[in-house]
Amino acid sequence: MTSVTSPLLTDLYELNMVQAYLDRGEDKEAAFEFFVRRLPARRGFLLAAGLEDALDYLETMRFSAQEIAWLKSTGRFRDNLLDYLEAFRFTGDVHAIPEGSVCFPNEPLLRITAPLPQAQLVESRLINILHFQTLIASKAARMVLAAPGKILSDFGLRTAHGAEAGLYSARASYIAGFGGAANVLAGERYGIPIVGTMAHSFVQVHDDETQAFENFARSRPEGVILLIDTYDTEEGARKAVALAPKLKADGIAIRGVRIDSGDLIESARKVRGILDAGGLKDTIILVSGGINEDVLQGMMAVKAPIDGFGIGVNLDASIDAPSLDCAYKMQDYGGRPKRKLSEGKATWPGRKQVWRTYDTDGRMAGDILSIETDTQAGEKLIVPVMRGGKRLAPAPSFDDIRARAARDLARLPEPLRQLEQGVTYPVQVAEALKALAKEADRYTKG
Amino acid sequence: MTSVTSPLLTDLYELNMVQAYLDRGEDKEAAFEFFVRRLPARRGFLLAAGLEDALDYLETMRFSAQEIAWLKSTGRFRDNLLDYLEAFRFTGDVHAIPEGSVCFPNEPLLRITAPLPQAQLVESRLINILHFQTLIASKAARMVLAAPGKILSDFGLRTAHGAEAGLYSARASYIAGFGGAANVLAGERYGIPIVGTMAHSFVQVHDDETQAFENFARSRPEGVILLIDTYDTEEGARKAVALAPKLKADGIAIRGVRIDSGDLIESARKVRGILDAGGLKDTIILVSGGINEDVLQGMMAVKAPIDGFGIGVNLDASIDAPSLDCAYKMQDYGGRPKRKLSEGKATWPGRKQVWRTYDTDGRMAGDILSIETDTQAGEKLIVPVMRGGKRLAPAPSFDDIRARAARDLARLPEPLRQLEQGVTYPVQVAEALKALAKEADRYTKG
Repeated sequence: MTSVTSPLLTDLYELNMVQAYLDRGEDKEAAFEFFVRRLPARRGFLLAAGLEDALDYLETMRFSAQEIAWLKSTGRFRDNLLDYLEAFRFTGDVHAIPEGSVCFPNEPLLRITAPLPQAQLVESRLINILHFQTLIASKAARMVLAAPGKILSDFGLRTAHGAEAGLYSARASYIAGFGGAANVLAGERYGIPIVGTMAHSFVQVHDDETQAFENFARSRPEGVILLIDTYDTEEGARKAVALAPKLKADGIAIRGVRIDSGDLIESARKVRGILDAGGLKDTIILVSGGINEDVLQGMMAVKAPIDGFGIGVNLDASIDAPSLDCAYKMQDYGGRPKRKLSEGKATWPGRKQVWRTYDTDGRMAGDILSIETDTQAGEKLIVPVMRGGKRLAPAPSFDDIRARAARDLARLPEPLRQLEQGVTYPVQVAEALKALAKEADRYTKG
Repeated sequence: MTSVTSPLLTDLYELNMVQAYLDRGEDKEAAFEFFVRRLPARRGFLLAAGLEDALDYLETMRFSAQEIAWLKSTGRFRDNLLDYLEAFRFTGDVHAIPEGSVCFPNEPLLRITAPLPQAQLVESRLINILHFQTLIASKAARMVLAAPGKILSDFGLRTAHGAEAGLYSARASYIAGFGGAANVLAGERYGIPIVGTMAHSFVQVHDDETQAFENFARSRPEGVILLIDTYDTEEGARKAVALAPKLKADGIAIRGVRIDSGDLIESARKVRGILDAGGLKDTIILVSGGINEDVLQGMMAVKAPIDGFGIGVNLDASIDAPSLDCAYKMQDYGGRPKRKLSEGKATWPGRKQVWRTYDTDGRMAGDILSIETDTQAGEKLIVPVMRGGKRLAPAPSFDDIRARAARDLARLPEPLRQLEQGVTYPVQVAEALKALAKEADRYTKG
């Protein structure tokens, strides 16, 4: 069976267009850029993510003999295309905003510069990777900002949109500052810390809740987190307290308890009281179920005695905004700037750069969007990452990517760190870019 | 590199619990059921999907030596678990509501009956498959009902949530009655019809839009669909008309045009006029961009001259309701009924069946939810599909699954076929099930 990440994971029109380009020898150098057109409601910024997976895709994209045979069997494609795909290697250049960077609409997260058929062929999957990871990292960043100092964990695999959404959510939220994920594959694939407690079914299997707690603790002595709400949360907490001395005698500490239902704030307060009175002051309280950034902010505001949060579908499906309005658009071809003029969807042409300036207190003051050959003041956000189909440097460590994200989130203007921003970050289009747009329109015969 | 559908794609707590079960020899037979707790706003029914992929998962789930070695390397698991996973084969039974069936909250879409560690281990991925495909099939069914007789195509891969979401969306929407998908892998993997036109970039590459149309047509002579809105939609339509005789002389017909921007209804009317006046009465009009079931209904209401719709993220991310509130819950263990009593999350225990009755006009009249050993009037929805880890029959054909979906959508009570239902379909809980719930509570010592 083909992998779900086979190069056939693309839109048919990409193959149709490559067929037509090959038929005409239309293979001059093209530049395409991926960017987000506008932010969803209540969002003030994007956190770039997905680049390393996108680069992996470009470096390793190959059509197997079986895939070529299937394409041939459809009768849709001619031998010149099949031969081209069989020998396919991505040989282009990539420029991008590094993962973990804060960025804004119209700023290219990634640029592909390659012979036209190559640049076209990779469109669908590149968008598929970059859109989703940036969506989730941007959502996770709001949660991180809403709950400073708290442990946030991705519990969302089960209702993520398929296997890869679960995997990418773990990765993107970890970049944004989450502490880990429940998804074991995220540990194996990416080295992300994996976390987990127990399910209600575990308690239900046992006739006695205390016996369930003890059996679980003895099998997981290194990090016992007990789920205490299967029947009655406060009663569950009292049972944990009663069990603690017996476990302690065998060197096992109850590291935490989890509450997954009811009024989480009220329950956490009562449970904290029971644990503290029972001598379990070091036992942390984790909660799960319906957690999003607004819930987090509300819990912080009332100083709920909660140490950590398991966050599910609100993260993995970005429930309030499950997509970003984004595009992968041709910027130039054969040396000429290009842009689309479709009603309501016109874009800025050319190969672009973003310059960012900072206030004296280190906060972001504004960005300038221009053509890359322009000269502007500030820090350049877009850097070369791949040349001739090869990465220019090994993938950065998660520590580095997470440090970048933490630094950029700290440098956001204060209003943009709030869940309701009330302001728009200034991204100014430079004169040089406006002039190029006019030039592109002049070339457009339509 | 491990596949994104590795058996490590699970939540850590599943492994933690299986470790504890193995440590205690806790492996009696357990039954778990997957069901949706409640419908999202504006939804009146569910369309079951994902079963065949879930059965594939159960039949083929294996841990590779590499995966076992990685688990061992984490230091979290003992040899009894690692040995168990190395030898793992799913040997349980599965009962399910067939794909393409209309169903409702609290009705089990799937039941696993297996030794406890097996039934627990498969939880995360089973939910991951069934939740998403049922979510998308249910969303797609609304679109199918809103636009009878129209060609609907899944164009959503790029902003689907990762690779598998794109693949599963194509599958689930095809079950619901879509005509096909742009995703090539959906064609290779599932045999779903693949469809595709061209991108704006193709037009932009050419200095002249007419030349772009001609080049594309000559490379795709069997099914030319021209994208006519890159610069000016009406002008694009006139160019298609002007080009048609030259293509016709070479035996090439312009099968359709696509409009992707602007006021789609207004544009379609003008374009229809231009095509008809130019002798292209058989050339169909396809539109894309922002299409959802409400837009479809609006276009149908004003009789917009549109033949087909390319539907993207509104389908693939189910934008209005990107998740279903669902659960995979233990129903019995070792012969005793089980249910969770957590505040606000209590469930019905036991192995269940659903009986459905119909009005004299063939429309669904109501369902009864009871224990499977009960006797009720009506058609039983839940059927055995796997025994001892083996499918009882080969996977049904898409034709059969689609026919079931079409039949069930036709049998929905008329209010439930509307985008705003205003009514709730009656699902009655039988006395036998209520009695079992009381019995389960009696067993619960808490």
